[in-house]
Parts: sequence; structure tokens; C-alpha cells
Amino acid sequence: MSTYLTILGFNSAIPTINSSPTAQFLEMEERHFLIDCGEGTQVQMRKAKVRFSKINHIFISHLHGDHCFGLPGLVASFRLLGRKTPLHIYGPKGIKKMMDTIFEITETYKGFDVVYHELDKKVSEKIYEDKRVEVFTIPLNHRIYCNGYLFREKPKERHLNMKEIARYKEIEICDFQNLRSGKDFICEDETIIENAILTTDPKPSVSYAFCSDTKYKEDIIPIIRNVDVLYHESTFLNNLKEMADYTGHSTALEAATIAKKANVGKLILGHFSNRYSDLSVMTDEARQVFPNTFLPKALETVKIG
Amino acid sequence: MSTYLTILGFNSAIPTINSSPTAQFLEMEERHFLIDCGEGTQVQMRKAKVRFSKINHIFISHLHGDHCFGLPGLVASFRLLGRKTPLHIYGPKGIKKMMDTIFEITETYKGFDVVYHELDKKVSEKIYEDKRVEVFTIPLNHRIYCNGYLFREKPKERHLNMKEIARYKEIEICDFQNLRSGKDFICEDETIIENAILTTDPKPSVSYAFCSDTKYKEDIIPIIRNVDVLYHESTFLNNLKEMADYTGHSTALEAATIAKKANVGKLILGHFSNRYSDLSVMTDEARQVFPNTFLPKALETVKIG
Repeated sequence: MSTYLTILGFNSAIPTINSSPTAQFLEMEERHFLIDCGEGTQVQMRKAKVRFSKINHIFISHLHGDHCFGLPGLVASFRLLGRKTPLHIYGPKGIKKMMDTIFEITETYKGFDVVYHELDKKVSEKIYEDKRVEVFTIPLNHRIYCNGYLFREKPKERHLNMKEIARYKEIEICDFQNLRSGKDFICEDETIIENAILTTDPKPSVSYAFCSDTKYKEDIIPIIRNVDVLYHESTFLNNLKEMADYTGHSTALEAATIAKKANVGKLILGHFSNRYSDLSVMTDEARQVFPNTFLPKALETVKIG
Repeated sequence: MSTYLTILGFNSAIPTINSSPTAQFLEMEERHFLIDCGEGTQVQMRKAKVRFSKINHIFISHLHGDHCFGLPGLVASFRLLGRKTPLHIYGPKGIKKMMDTIFEITETYKGFDVVYHELDKKVSEKIYEDKRVEVFTIPLNHRIYCNGYLFREKPKERHLNMKEIARYKEIEICDFQNLRSGKDFICEDETIIENAILTTDPKPSVSYAFCSDTKYKEDIIPIIRNVDVLYHESTFLNNLKEMADYTGHSTALEAATIAKKANVGKLILGHFSNRYSDLSVMTDEARQVFPNTFLPKALETVKIG
């Protein structure tokens, strides 16, 4: 039950023959999340062998076409594939009206519920939670209302150290859950056996932050601090910083600065302007500030944590 | 100035790794028409080296996703590429509302005019005309309002036979246009010189009919009679005729029957159900009725006429 990230597409604005607009597939604790859905995402999902039926939650950062124009087709395909389970779509206010209008005019009868979670807050909020995973918004600063998303495994239960536990006859099976949750054991004679003796550390909880599209925004640092992997857009190199500011985007240097200040484990860049054919210039610039920076590889699945 | 057809995609319903939904590019007398625009069409256009700036007229048969979900992205790309010239979109009533809603919510400012020509008539009508080409609707019978389109070169001017003309001193340059348009020459002594002596036949005018999606519908035969090439959908084989009727589609046998009764030059099938992996079964069935039947080849450009 590890966490895996598959970047389905990462280019900006116009789809080309060899690159697809933004979309990512995140598998965390057996939950399957789709993040953004540019045109052609469903074909990229097929190439990456993502099972359509596994996707129950889709997170859309913002309503520019290169991040959402694949959504109507994907939902229509879900229906054609006989889906019955509800689909949850998280995205900016307006996404429901857009999708409802499209489906009404194209007479796309879905046969399953689409539950829209429309977002309009300017502060980070928890928008998804279950027993093992939680998802928070990361308010970004783009030309249009835009959120990144933080995906975080909840703290895991401690592992029982059965060899140690066996030494204490008083500890019974009904006590195990308390031990797993980190509590000390108190004997009948009120002796305390510290939890650290009876259990071992769990596997660390993994976190992933997705940040596209945004100007340089230091406000996000407290939200994404210490994440294992940060995806941060870097549409331009820093010699086009004015262009980046004007269009609401970041430079590779800025993405790396955010990564460094937030003390993340690894930085993946993306959303590059089509003007760059050799993308190594992006990592060259970013690594001056944050060495553990990488380019995305479309359709490659990487383990997080 | 010949006529060329490039089929960009021809599968039905769900895009797959190796096939794209319906879209065609027709070049007729230096006009450049896009017909239908399923998801991913703009990438198929790039693969086929279609110049985006050449497209001024898009014809959408019907508002099912596999025929129109590529349209918002294509128009957005036109804008990003700096388009200034107006774009004409022909399609069923509702297309303007759908596109306007999408562009309003995604804040896609176009920078050029999009002129919608919304269709709702149940009889064939001429919807486009210029000096050399005309386009007519072909009302079809699908689950939703749907038109095919007939593209026809206008009759061309006759060629001057200069060797013969030189024999008649009375014929001057100012008479040439009358001769090209087929008129006889009347001498001063009222002798008539027949046009057939002074000119030769022009290149025949070419016509192409696109018919997708539809049940078997004999009413279309007078509209498409004698076209050089007919594209007619054949979603199913005839052993699934009930399924074809129920879903508003045709079988290969039915497409061939239409082609035969309309005396067309060549039939291209398409819009196949994903259940068929070996598509030769489609031509095997159709050729029993209409031998000059072919499968489409994605991205291949064929000369018409």
C-alpha cells in the first residue's frame, strides 16, 4: 500500500503530437485520484493502464481548458463503460454549470451520480477525508481562481512488538488497539510500560503536493512544508520572469525556491511553455537552488516515499 | 485545385490508444473544411500537418461527444495561436449555448469572431456558398438532431479551344467569358458557331457526402445521388441490425445499399463499434452489395475525383 504517481501529461496550453496537457494519476493507500484532466487525458489513462472504474475522485485545479477540457469526454466514457458508482469532482465554482450545460445539450445521460464539490475559498481547507487519507486545497495565484491539492496519508498505526509484549502476561488482545494508537500500558500495580518498548515505528506517512498554475506565492509554504514530493509548475525560465508574472505563472527558479523554503523531499517541474524544446534548461536553472529537482516523464509511474 | 479528403478519426463512442473519434479535413477548390471534431482532433490535425490557420469553416453533424468534444480545445488553441480571422461553425441548435457557456466559465477570450450557424431544419438546405463551392445539409435519422453534409464543386468554366477560336476573326477577347460560360458565338451575319466547337469540356465538378450518424434512411438518396465519394457510417454488421436500429446507427450492408441506390462512385465506411477488432468484416459485408467499398485509413489523404 505505497503511494504512486503517474504523470499523464504536463505541457501547457496547446496539446502537441508528443505531449499532453496537465493530468496526473495518484494512487495513495489504495485510493485512486485523478488530478486535472486536459483534453486527451482518457487516452493517456489507457496508455498508462489506469483502470477507469477505479477513479472515484477527480480534482480540477482551475477551469482553463488545458486543465479541464478532457473532463466531459471522460465522464461520457465512464457512462458508456456502464459505471454505476458515484463520481466526486472537486473544482472551482462554475464547474457544475459547465458540465451540466454540456451534458444537457449533448444529451449525455450518465446513469450514475456526479457529485460536484465546488470550491471558492481563498484559504486552505480539508476537502476529502477517509480512514487513511486526507486532501487539502492549496490556494494558488493564477489569472483565474485556482487551487493546488495536498494529498496526505494519515499517521499510521504503530507496529506491535510481539516479542516484548509476550513478556507481559497482563497485556491481552483487547489492549492491542491502544498500543497501536501509541498509548502506554498501565499494569494493575500502576507500573507504566512505555509504548516505545511494546511497539515499533510505523512506516512514515507520505505526502504529495500538486501546484499548477500559479505565480510565485510564498503563502503556500506552510501548507506544503516537508512534503515528500512537490509538483510545481515552471512555465518559464527566470529570464522571462516578467512574462511569468503577467500570465500568472512561475519560473523554474521560483519553483525551486518554493521547494527549498518548504523543505520538500523532491521537486518535479512541469507545465512548460512550448517555446522550450530542450527541457534540461529547466532543471539546470532549478537545481542551482534545489538540487533534487527532476523533469516529469509522461506515463512513468514513480513511487513516493 | 483538386479535392482531397483526410480522415482524422473514425471510431465511435470511446477514444482508444490507436483510434480517434470522428473528424475529417476536406480541401476543396482551396477551401479548407473541418467536419466533426471529436476529442483529440487538434492533435490529429497536427499529425496530418493541417495548418490551423487555414480552417475557416467547421461543420458539426450532431452534438454527441464523440463528434464535438474536441471543439472547445481547438477554438482555444486558435486563440493561443493568435488567430484574427472569423471562424464559422455550422451545427445543431444548442452548439452556441454550449460553446458560449464553456468559454464564459473558462474565461477563454477569443480575440476573433466565432460565427455560429445553428441548424434545426428537417429538410436539406444550402448552408454555404462561394464562387466555386457549395455545401448542403443531409438530414439524418439519429437519436439526436443530426445532419450529414454534401460538399459540391460548382460547375466549372469550359476551356477555350484557341486553335479553333483563331479561325474566326470576329471573336475577340471580350467574348471569351461568354464562351467559357457555354454560350454559342453569333457572327455579324447571324451564323451561329456552336460553343462545343470553340471550347472543350471542363474538369468534372467533384462532390463528397459525409453521413454520420444515422439509421438507414433512403430519403437521403436524392441528395447524395452520383457523388464521387460517400462516407457513410456503419457502426455494426447486419447481424446486429436490431442494435443498429435501437441506437440510431447503420450496418455495413445498409451503408452499401444506400451507396448502390444513390449510384455513388466510392463508399468509405466508418464509425465502427469497438467490438470489431478486424474491420475487414465490414468491407466483406458491404462489398456483397457495393463492391467499390473501402475502410478509412486515419491520417491518409485521398484525392477525390
